[in-house]
Amino acid sequence: MIVKGKHYKTVWLEGSTVKIINQAVLPHKFEITECPDHQRTARAISTMIIRGAGAIGSAAAFGMAQAAIEAPENDFEAYIKNARVSLRNTRPTAQNLFYSIERVYKCIREASDPHQARTCAVMEAEAIALEDINACKQIGEIGAKLIKSDFKILTHCNAGWLAFTDWGTALSPIYVAKRENKNIFVWVDETRPRFQGARLTSWELQEEGIPYAVIADNAAGFYMQRGEVDLVIVGSDRIARNGDVANKIGTYEKAVLAKENNIPFYVAAPTSTIDWDCANGSDISIEERSEEEVVTVTGRDEVNNLRTVSIVPEGATARNPAFDVTPARYITGIITEKGIVKPENLVKLKDK
Amino acid sequence: MIVKGKHYKTVWLEGSTVKIINQAVLPHKFEITECPDHQRTARAISTMIIRGAGAIGSAAAFGMAQAAIEAPENDFEAYIKNARVSLRNTRPTAQNLFYSIERVYKCIREASDPHQARTCAVMEAEAIALEDINACKQIGEIGAKLIKSDFKILTHCNAGWLAFTDWGTALSPIYVAKRENKNIFVWVDETRPRFQGARLTSWELQEEGIPYAVIADNAAGFYMQRGEVDLVIVGSDRIARNGDVANKIGTYEKAVLAKENNIPFYVAAPTSTIDWDCANGSDISIEERSEEEVVTVTGRDEVNNLRTVSIVPEGATARNPAFDVTPARYITGIITEKGIVKPENLVKLKDK
Repeated sequence: MIVKGKHYKTVWLEGSTVKIINQAVLPHKFEITECPDHQRTARAISTMIIRGAGAIGSAAAFGMAQAAIEAPENDFEAYIKNARVSLRNTRPTAQNLFYSIERVYKCIREASDPHQARTCAVMEAEAIALEDINACKQIGEIGAKLIKSDFKILTHCNAGWLAFTDWGTALSPIYVAKRENKNIFVWVDETRPRFQGARLTSWELQEEGIPYAVIADNAAGFYMQRGEVDLVIVGSDRIARNGDVANKIGTYEKAVLAKENNIPFYVAAPTSTIDWDCANGSDISIEERSEEEVVTVTGRDEVNNLRTVSIVPEGATARNPAFDVTPARYITGIITEKGIVKPENLVKLKDK
Repeated sequence: MIVKGKHYKTVWLEGSTVKIINQAVLPHKFEITECPDHQRTARAISTMIIRGAGAIGSAAAFGMAQAAIEAPENDFEAYIKNARVSLRNTRPTAQNLFYSIERVYKCIREASDPHQARTCAVMEAEAIALEDINACKQIGEIGAKLIKSDFKILTHCNAGWLAFTDWGTALSPIYVAKRENKNIFVWVDETRPRFQGARLTSWELQEEGIPYAVIADNAAGFYMQRGEVDLVIVGSDRIARNGDVANKIGTYEKAVLAKENNIPFYVAAPTSTIDWDCANGSDISIEERSEEEVVTVTGRDEVNNLRTVSIVPEGATARNPAFDVTPARYITGIITEKGIVKPENLVKLKDK
């Protein structure tokens, strides 16, 4: 997408350096973080300098490619194996991460020598990033058909282009609808604790000129109850075979409320998000992150410096599950690059 | 309740000065704000230096008493009428505010002369504050019967002693259960946008030595889904005759989620919260507050100064409804000082 007149992807490989839009400081600063080796790329994923299912998938693929470039010929296999473990250990929930790492790993293993492995790893990582972009674009075209003019659409967290390599998932149909000149308005759940909605989705929508309002996560039900939400679209970090969906904490709440208020609730995700080995949502590992994310808030102070403040009494205790699982029964449909399916029909996509 | 070894009420009258625990700076600072006249008391209510249904009821009653003390004899009635309007205009939703103002106003009007009016206004305001304390204490005794040992209880916002003159409503049964040596744990919804849970409920529970964890409002559904919530208790700002309940934004979401997960959902409130003139929730006026409350966060910086940071891009737009209405069908029972009733039986309390 375009930032200040220039086209950017969220993450890309230049030589042996992975470059990443630093999402930890957005929207306050627009900075490119350079990761000169795969360890640095892994750290950027675990510290959420880059976040979002597809974006960390591409970042991890590029990380594996970096590992292939760095690996000494006399210790090639062990180095690659270690890199794979480091990158797999960065975040536990997003399927795209594992999907991408394993694809690059497979192609490294199948190469006849380290030289071929390097070439192949870089090409495979580039292919993964490109497939992610194309899938997201397709999701936009397909999902836009659900959006009528004058719709008010609620979204949770950020499943925009920042969360993928480009375009995004939940926001992609909104971007396409906007290009089709539909009149739309977006309710942006701020998405505590890390405010991905307030910080990132609002920033994306503002750059695109799409009207929106940031709301406390608590207010989504209020607007649903008043008939001011026509459609909910969210992204996903992992989808089980039965259609259960893991996504940012709070997604389950919005899904239950949408059902209660008869509002269509869609999940937008590329098929790379589906974990065919996972029978249902209870098998999905849910990351619990530091309580610091709940008890402190980072923002821009009056002189434009980033500053962190504590919102609780000293010594307060907190819990911080980063994702939840929305059972398939609350989901109207899953928008993929291969079409929209009901969650119970997900398996039909497997060989499509 | 006890703060640093000393007993405090949330608000009290000393001579002609209303003294208030400043809730805008808690838990970072413990400060008493002095309001030397009824205008200053009104401002303390509208700026939320004091907040919470019962606390603003008592503050407004004391404000009316201040007006009676201040009013010049040659313009007594007009002065009182103006004060009544100013105090009524501070906040639109909480029933206790109007209930208290009208009680003091009635007794001023019925007095035979300004001198008698002054005495009567002060006595009536003191009576209102005392009734609030006693009702909250009763609610604690009655509500504690719902709490079994090893219960995990979820609460939203702050309906603790800070929200009333003393004891509180939703937290009062928890305080009584603790005194009964029941082993309890409290999930504290942080309660965006103003973080009354993260700031105030956590502070109260910590002072009382009750184990708790602050969670993002988004995580409440997650813990309900996992069977880690046995009971939900919230407060209320206004209850309609049919049992619909207005309370802090987000309450409706938690009520729907509790019902979906078969968790008992109780509202604790003194009968002064019931608006007998209000047939149902759609008649309740919902305050929309400044978007600043959503897009900025105030907390304690590294050197213990209060500091406000912005969490959104410059120029972002936001919406900020402060309350929502939970329809009676989601409410298991209403805990009042006169007993626990089902919302549909509320009217039985009227002449009790």
